[in-house]
Amino acid sequence: MNYAMFRYIMCILMETEAALLLLPLGVSIYFGDGQAMAFIIPILLLALPGTAGVLKKPENTVIYAREGYIIVSISWLLMSVVGALPFWISGSIPAYIDCFFETVSGFTTTGASILRDIEAMPPSMLFWRSFTHWVGGMGVLVFIMAIVPLAGGRTLHLMRAESPGPSVGKMTSKVRSTAFTLYSIYLGISVLEIILLCLGGMPLFDSLIHTFGSVGTGGFSNHSASVAYYDSAYIDVVISVFMLLCGMNFNIYYLLLTRQFAAALKSEEMHWYLGIVAASTLVIALNILHLFGDFFTSLRYSLFQVSSIMTTTGFATTNFDAWPELSRVILVALMLLGACAGSTGGGLKVSRFVILLKSAGRTIRRALHPNATQLIYFEGRPLDESIVSGVNSYFTLFCLLHLVSILIVSINGFDFTTTLTSVIACFNNIGPGLSLVGPMGGYADFNVASKLVLSFDMVFGRLEIIPLLMLFAPGAWRYKKSVSKR
Amino acid sequence: MNYAMFRYIMCILMETEAALLLLPLGVSIYFGDGQAMAFIIPILLLALPGTAGVLKKPENTVIYAREGYIIVSISWLLMSVVGALPFWISGSIPAYIDCFFETVSGFTTTGASILRDIEAMPPSMLFWRSFTHWVGGMGVLVFIMAIVPLAGGRTLHLMRAESPGPSVGKMTSKVRSTAFTLYSIYLGISVLEIILLCLGGMPLFDSLIHTFGSVGTGGFSNHSASVAYYDSAYIDVVISVFMLLCGMNFNIYYLLLTRQFAAALKSEEMHWYLGIVAASTLVIALNILHLFGDFFTSLRYSLFQVSSIMTTTGFATTNFDAWPELSRVILVALMLLGACAGSTGGGLKVSRFVILLKSAGRTIRRALHPNATQLIYFEGRPLDESIVSGVNSYFTLFCLLHLVSILIVSINGFDFTTTLTSVIACFNNIGPGLSLVGPMGGYADFNVASKLVLSFDMVFGRLEIIPLLMLFAPGAWRYKKSVSKR
Repeated sequence: MNYAMFRYIMCILMETEAALLLLPLGVSIYFGDGQAMAFIIPILLLALPGTAGVLKKPENTVIYAREGYIIVSISWLLMSVVGALPFWISGSIPAYIDCFFETVSGFTTTGASILRDIEAMPPSMLFWRSFTHWVGGMGVLVFIMAIVPLAGGRTLHLMRAESPGPSVGKMTSKVRSTAFTLYSIYLGISVLEIILLCLGGMPLFDSLIHTFGSVGTGGFSNHSASVAYYDSAYIDVVISVFMLLCGMNFNIYYLLLTRQFAAALKSEEMHWYLGIVAASTLVIALNILHLFGDFFTSLRYSLFQVSSIMTTTGFATTNFDAWPELSRVILVALMLLGACAGSTGGGLKVSRFVILLKSAGRTIRRALHPNATQLIYFEGRPLDESIVSGVNSYFTLFCLLHLVSILIVSINGFDFTTTLTSVIACFNNIGPGLSLVGPMGGYADFNVASKLVLSFDMVFGRLEIIPLLMLFAPGAWRYKKSVSKR
Repeated sequence: MNYAMFRYIMCILMETEAALLLLPLGVSIYFGDGQAMAFIIPILLLALPGTAGVLKKPENTVIYAREGYIIVSISWLLMSVVGALPFWISGSIPAYIDCFFETVSGFTTTGASILRDIEAMPPSMLFWRSFTHWVGGMGVLVFIMAIVPLAGGRTLHLMRAESPGPSVGKMTSKVRSTAFTLYSIYLGISVLEIILLCLGGMPLFDSLIHTFGSVGTGGFSNHSASVAYYDSAYIDVVISVFMLLCGMNFNIYYLLLTRQFAAALKSEEMHWYLGIVAASTLVIALNILHLFGDFFTSLRYSLFQVSSIMTTTGFATTNFDAWPELSRVILVALMLLGACAGSTGGGLKVSRFVILLKSAGRTIRRALHPNATQLIYFEGRPLDESIVSGVNSYFTLFCLLHLVSILIVSINGFDFTTTLTSVIACFNNIGPGLSLVGPMGGYADFNVASKLVLSFDMVFGRLEIIPLLMLFAPGAWRYKKSVSKR
């Protein structure tokens, strides 16, 4: 373990979070909501040790895979522990565990909330709450890599640990420029959505909040009724489209920017993703037709909800918990499935699902022809067996962690549907589930143990299990001379 | 595809089922319940073409893996289609789909029932219904192999396809003697339980019914209240013990019979199995303590229910659907987990679960030490990678089939818990689930589509997916000269 480098990156992280907190501070001063001190205190708490720590650069800047995992996990926990302070200092959320839950939910782009009365929150707090989505969507370490010349291109392991999906893909040759490109695309999409929402008559502040929520695929709104508050087909469609855009692999936008249109359009994962969205939207639209009367209204609500759940955002334009059972089950299945690799969304990821499907298909073919060699093709190439078995193992871990979490949350004594979907909705970074945690409900009534488990589940989901699990593996912390080469 | 051999085995199967139907016919005559014709008609329907078909023995008796799969699947479907006739002819169950569901549920040792008033059924029908558990528990093809000199030891593929668990194990060198030994042990255990139940004051007829239900890990009772009807601690304990015994790998009894005590006692799967039963029993006993007042009563109910669910039997001594959420979730987890490989129980199987756990553990170790070779040990030996990846693929198929079934059953419009647990309880051959399909409920209200899907799920669970899936794979039916070597 390269502790010097660990300390150094943590200090940069603290400085970065202090800088990010200047934005809600500005909002507080602009609206005059009297919450300035709630931001100034954490800014000082972060900036002072952070600045002291970055003065001495470590000599050895090499980071290995497991150090990358640990740095990323600790970063996310630290960011949330400190990011929760404004809520707590201001008293907007009285219990610290609730502040922590809400902040983890923000950074991990989950959108699960313990707030009972969102409208009663000061604007600066609502801004910070939603801004965490925007920061967490693309990843704060990716952000740091985009602006700080960290270690001469040796930070690939950090990026790999923070980016969702089975592999970071083709853009990894130059980490810093990749990180910069990713954030530029992300910013561009965000600005476009803010403009389009304002054009639809949404106030600027609300447009910011809902853009953070949709491009980060988070789902926090500044209204208890979520996007249903505006009751506008235009706004529903704009947000649906932007959620869907941010549930796609950002590589695709990179390819489009560099005019590689053919490569962008033939992404197999994108075809599956759009196909699943289209099929689910259609089935649900027909299934809820009797609730809305005409097909186009029903399609509008269905498209919005499918986009919101599949991209793991969690916005709602209606109480889907009251929909027929088929629609509810499809939505829960989409929660588990999630968005594309390399997007801001959570869940198992479409690419993993497709690889699992193909690997299941191969099991059947193997039973038929036991001696034939059977390769699995994905994105036009045969997959290495280590990727196939890696995806299978990931799925097993994914199921086991869901099971353990469900067992612990069940001690809370809520009904089966609440217990199950609260874990699914947090682990896969959606936010709302069914029953008590449905779009009209929330997480306020869970006990501290459940809130902690669900918080960890959100981080497990966002960082894709392995990095956070490393924290519990004693071997990961061991100082190994041969490996750290000091 | 060796069609001659296929036809030949089907005919032996028909003769066997005709012979098995003589037993309930005898029961009908003994009780004078007037149902004799309901058995005589199917006996004639089976025996006449069956006897005609076995007159000409096929020249080529070789069966390959995929032919084994198809023969086993068709056998199970045919057995159920004909086995449903007595219920239908007698009018005890009016709709044929319900007769089919009940018979599939019997043969697959599921115990899911569409009956609303069990006590109103004639005794011969109750006998046949439960006797299917006994036949299905060990497998009717294994039974045939035990008594008919089928193909000079070339029927391993049949046995492999019908026996639960990742591999048939050490007993496969001599198929016929293995099948004979298995059935002898099975019969011995059954006789012992009948005697012990009679000693506890249970009438002989009821003892037969509950022995069929427990040694086959099926769960049909002749009372609506299931085992709770007797309200006897002695009977509860006897049935708990026999369910647990039949949830273990029958290899262990073979080893005990051949005085290989050390080998029998060091079975890793058995340790996990008993460990999980003990831990679950203890946690549930504490969780339901307030319902029963004292610890020993609570332990009695907990042990019975854990044994019943983990072995996938499905008997009940109380309405566990009304237990606290933690106990309910543990029971659902045990439903998915299931019994040991090579037992009469269903579910994923303990050995597969352990291999999945170890493979998940390896994923974490691999993240720590990417270049180290990591073997997985099970039952004291390093596992071949093909077994590890086979178990992972099996788990994926298992989850996918659950998902598809849940989607179809959800069209029925029951609540989330009912939809989910009905599929889990049928696929894993338990019988009762939670909510509407809880121990006090049943499957009568499902529509025809759901009943068909759940019936197929039961066969999927009993035959462990692959054989039944082969029926839908066009390649499996193709006549290949090079393979069938005629």
